[in-house]
Amino acid sequence: MSKTKASTPKGMRDFSPVEMMRRKYVFSTIERVFQKYGFLPLETPAMENLSTLTGKYGEEGDRLIFKVLNSGDYLKKAGVDRDNGLADIHSVSLTSKISDKALRYDLTVPFARYVVQHQNELTFPFKRYQIQPVWRADRPQKGRYREFTQCDADIIGSNSLLNELDLIAVFSDVFTELDLPVRVHLNDRKILTGLAEISGQADKVVDMVTALDKLDKIGRDKVVAEMRERGITDEAVAMISPLFDLKGGSEEMLASVASVLECSETGMAGVEDLRWMMVQTQQLGLSAVELVFDPTLARGLDYYTGAIFEVKAAIGSMSSSICGGGRYDDLTGVFGLNGMSGVGISFGADRIYDVLMETGKFPEGVSSSTRVLFANFGEQEARFCMKLVSALRREGVPTELYPDPVKMKKQFKYADDKQIRFVAMVGEQEMKQEIISVKDLVSGEQKAVKEQELIELVK
Amino acid sequence: MSKTKASTPKGMRDFSPVEMMRRKYVFSTIERVFQKYGFLPLETPAMENLSTLTGKYGEEGDRLIFKVLNSGDYLKKAGVDRDNGLADIHSVSLTSKISDKALRYDLTVPFARYVVQHQNELTFPFKRYQIQPVWRADRPQKGRYREFTQCDADIIGSNSLLNELDLIAVFSDVFTELDLPVRVHLNDRKILTGLAEISGQADKVVDMVTALDKLDKIGRDKVVAEMRERGITDEAVAMISPLFDLKGGSEEMLASVASVLECSETGMAGVEDLRWMMVQTQQLGLSAVELVFDPTLARGLDYYTGAIFEVKAAIGSMSSSICGGGRYDDLTGVFGLNGMSGVGISFGADRIYDVLMETGKFPEGVSSSTRVLFANFGEQEARFCMKLVSALRREGVPTELYPDPVKMKKQFKYADDKQIRFVAMVGEQEMKQEIISVKDLVSGEQKAVKEQELIELVK
Repeated sequence: MSKTKASTPKGMRDFSPVEMMRRKYVFSTIERVFQKYGFLPLETPAMENLSTLTGKYGEEGDRLIFKVLNSGDYLKKAGVDRDNGLADIHSVSLTSKISDKALRYDLTVPFARYVVQHQNELTFPFKRYQIQPVWRADRPQKGRYREFTQCDADIIGSNSLLNELDLIAVFSDVFTELDLPVRVHLNDRKILTGLAEISGQADKVVDMVTALDKLDKIGRDKVVAEMRERGITDEAVAMISPLFDLKGGSEEMLASVASVLECSETGMAGVEDLRWMMVQTQQLGLSAVELVFDPTLARGLDYYTGAIFEVKAAIGSMSSSICGGGRYDDLTGVFGLNGMSGVGISFGADRIYDVLMETGKFPEGVSSSTRVLFANFGEQEARFCMKLVSALRREGVPTELYPDPVKMKKQFKYADDKQIRFVAMVGEQEMKQEIISVKDLVSGEQKAVKEQELIELVK
Repeated sequence: MSKTKASTPKGMRDFSPVEMMRRKYVFSTIERVFQKYGFLPLETPAMENLSTLTGKYGEEGDRLIFKVLNSGDYLKKAGVDRDNGLADIHSVSLTSKISDKALRYDLTVPFARYVVQHQNELTFPFKRYQIQPVWRADRPQKGRYREFTQCDADIIGSNSLLNELDLIAVFSDVFTELDLPVRVHLNDRKILTGLAEISGQADKVVDMVTALDKLDKIGRDKVVAEMRERGITDEAVAMISPLFDLKGGSEEMLASVASVLECSETGMAGVEDLRWMMVQTQQLGLSAVELVFDPTLARGLDYYTGAIFEVKAAIGSMSSSICGGGRYDDLTGVFGLNGMSGVGISFGADRIYDVLMETGKFPEGVSSSTRVLFANFGEQEARFCMKLVSALRREGVPTELYPDPVKMKKQFKYADDKQIRFVAMVGEQEMKQEIISVKDLVSGEQKAVKEQELIELVK
């Protein structure tokens, strides 16, 4: 075997033990809250049929899907005629012939596929959570990775607003536990639909949403320009523009929007839903999250039809949203199951990690694991220690015996590097007296104890 | 968008909530034990450079690696000349041009790559665990999947046998917690090397191991035939053959092997190591696992050099091993770091799952999640209940409010299907009296309680 350079592909990351322990803290916090709200775990395979994924994320999305090469002699199986040359073949047309599987691009489409495939075994409303990596052949940059983990929770088969309320409470609980102040931006697609309706451009809702979704990135003027390019009339743009200038608290802004939308039944339904949610969250006392009505919030994805959410950190420099979500009325329609309304949210765990790192919000001790290290003074002593090690482990205390009888300095460095708090030493002297010398690396204190005292000390 | 059929690719599986909860029970048991032994978590990306993986798993393995198609116009980037035709192109040579990434095939090679890449940041001995899915384009069959999860623990940078001892104790702890009786088959590659040496065929160790590894599958006669085919002399085969007929306990068998190996230093070192391990495990009282010396255990992989393990379930019909592992002296050499001895084990979580299912060893209640369901009697009542729901969740009790005011029968069926134990009902009457009617679906008992009593009852 020739030497291989040790490196990872572009945009792919290793997670070191310290990073993993922090990540586990984020994931387990989210998961615990999901479970407390009655969401059940689900996992779907990393690979889906390519046909399941294509056409669901727009043209750009299709390009960013990682395709998996078919096994074996895929060219022969594809019927590619070698003698005829490649003249009629380009990458796009070849792909569908030599690749029939692709990597998961998000958790929503596989979830929809799952619900349709297993509809007869499921009890509705079906509440599931799913924490798995997804892959996108995107250009890597700050906060954007080619492999990242999504944490989704959805309720499908119920159109009650109580579900939206529950999901806002989930945001509240998670970020309270993570001690991260956030703002939940809230809007309703029905309001955007209403605006399109009253400006006589009901057929342009998608164009409006697509343009509006870029507000954060390109600013107001360019959004207006894009709307015009997309054929939205000057009259309609004039109708929408006041959205950018709304001032005051959420209730005030909601009242302004309501006054514009009076003639649109759909629009007013959106206003009513938002009002209800804001009142209810107040009554529940979800003080940890600041709920903000954001009439310019659009969210790019086609499938949203009702409430839409975006969560932003209130501290730190991350301006992108760290969670998103919304209600969809027909996610499963494309797989043949119509009329299933649902609502879901997604936590961007990698971005949340970045915010917690930047703002120093990871609790101390989250990246320590082993509690006690027994130093190794030699064969005899090591064997004596093994029984103590077993006893501590039986008590649930993460414990190690250093495997080699090397210099103490090296063994203490090991404890230091691994953030191990206690080093237990049993030399000849201690063996005779049946005691253990134990040093607390935090306080620097050292004392001699009996086995039972050691257990009590380190627990 | 046209309708897409809802299905998963061949050999890929969805894990339903019930399956997920059982899987989590297996994973978390293994992970908890790993942590108790001081192993630190690590994760590597799903995709590695193709060059990192090829040549590490043998020819057959190379074929079974899932390759990921390059993005964009991969044919153009590959310099495939359309006008020149495909005459000189077949699937194998094209693959290296249009695919430079591949899916993880196991956790060992990515681990070795990680250690070499990060050698200057790591403290050795480095103890890591890794629980992630791997992918193989194998023909799916019972107990063999195209996506399955490995749970690995390795110590690298120490050649002390204490590490082997720790890993045997890990087996013991995990299977004690899972209440699954197992046999740990134990051998040492040095014994096999010794046998090759004394039969004058030191250069044929790999051939011997490859043939011997098939014993379970093809039987003794065919193993002997394959050895002959591989050029192992009749004399050597005669020397090895007694291995198949060894009778008695492990110590007895070890003594027989020792008498054959007297003249081989390497072989005797293997015997001594095994003896030490068997004595030490006895003294530690690892009664949960039965340790068996198995002189025919070979394990196919090239990189083992010392102790080798295989675990088999002592009950149920699964004859394949459910865990494996061993010591390697030069895993990282191929990536340019020599002289790093290590030892590791791998739990086949999917097979362990299958055994636990077949033998009915999953504990009751492992697949229930929500504890209390509040029935929904209408808008007014629902709003009243939400405060109770919040209170229970604050106490850590997984609680739901049924989102729609549908018939009680449907709501109770939901509780039944989800294995929810308590249904709480608050109608007009209860609201007035500030009480909650709660039904225990296990005992069938129903009573009226105050909020505080409810919390105590369901906790």
